Amino acid sequence: MNGPEIEQLVKLLAKLPGLGPRSARRAALQLLKKKDQLLRPLADALTNAAENVVSCHVCGNLDTADPCAVCADGRRDSGLVCVVEEVADLWAIERTAGFKGVYHVVGGTLSALDGRGPQDLNVAALVERCAAGGVREVVLALNATVEGQTTSHYIADRLKESPVQITRLAHGVPVGGELDYLDDGTLVAALKARRAV
Amino acid sequence: MNGPEIEQLVKLLAKLPGLGPRSARRAALQLLKKKDQLLRPLADALTNAAENVVSCHVCGNLDTADPCAVCADGRRDSGLVCVVEEVADLWAIERTAGFKGVYHVVGGTLSALDGRGPQDLNVAALVERCAAGGVREVVLALNATVEGQTTSHYIADRLKESPVQITRLAHGVPVGGELDYLDDGTLVAALKARRAV
Repeated sequence: MNGPEIEQLVKLLAKLPGLGPRSARRAALQLLKKKDQLLRPLADALTNAAENVVSCHVCGNLDTADPCAVCADGRRDSGLVCVVEEVADLWAIERTAGFKGVYHVVGGTLSALDGRGPQDLNVAALVERCAAGGVREVVLALNATVEGQTTSHYIADRLKESPVQITRLAHGVPVGGELDYLDDGTLVAALKARRAV
Repeated sequence: MNGPEIEQLVKLLAKLPGLGPRSARRAALQLLKKKDQLLRPLADALTNAAENVVSCHVCGNLDTADPCAVCADGRRDSGLVCVVEEVADLWAIERTAGFKGVYHVVGGTLSALDGRGPQDLNVAALVERCAAGGVREVVLALNATVEGQTTSHYIADRLKESPVQITRLAHGVPVGGELDYLDDGTLVAALKARRAV
């Protein structure tokens, strides 16, 4: 009833994470109502991103330059490589400004259910990076889910022959968290990894 | 840290209703990951919509034609005009396929708090439409909120001189609703407007 242009816009917006069919319709209306402030700038930004954003051939980060700004930054420690599942995780760690090494995005997890095997992950490039020398330590920062941990084990296994130290993120009580609301697994992990004060 | 193209995209996506800064970031990543399936088609759809979608000069609906498909449809009763707040409300009524008249979008409600007065609403065009003849009945279908009802009263007042019948949507128990969960106002309205079985 709305003309194919509007329907097509709603259909595509509904594919974004966080938007369903109803909120996509609301978003489309908002866009059409604010043509000059929102619709045209967003169209330009998308075209711009489609043309200019590329995947970094070293780490897999998304940026307008290849190698990306993180890999190209000479002040960062290129001997310390943090392995993450997705670009979103890389950005999350970057937001903390607490890590001064470089990254490697493997692009997902192993998952027998979803049919994702080792060939779907960007692990071979990591092994090569480590074999080429210059890498001192690999920090496995995959999600603390079953799939993430399985993938961590797999990556550690693939790096067994490399002369690099392999570490993983600490498990424990989240900062600001209350013990009463924590799951048993986290509490046990925090107790086991207790540290001297 | 991500290059201005990505930041600009995230900033614009965060302005859509239903998306905050964090979900806009997720949406941007999803778009960049699926460049050919999602990013480019969405950019094209937005450009397309920006160029082709216009506001109907008769009723205010958004469509690629002016007058819009609803106003141009000869099978519809142009003597029956349904007044709604926004285009979204028009679409909601159209989805029910239960109304065979035409529409008039006033474009909002009166709101002293938000500084929206009568001059910000598209009421003058409605008065003209009614004065020009051909309109038999005006159905006030604004939201059943305080602002919506205030605006309904204002519109009814403006149409006092016109030779049209003014009606409003029925208030009552929503179909499928349970009495126990209804607010008092709705229950009283439903009791007052009770009908013979």
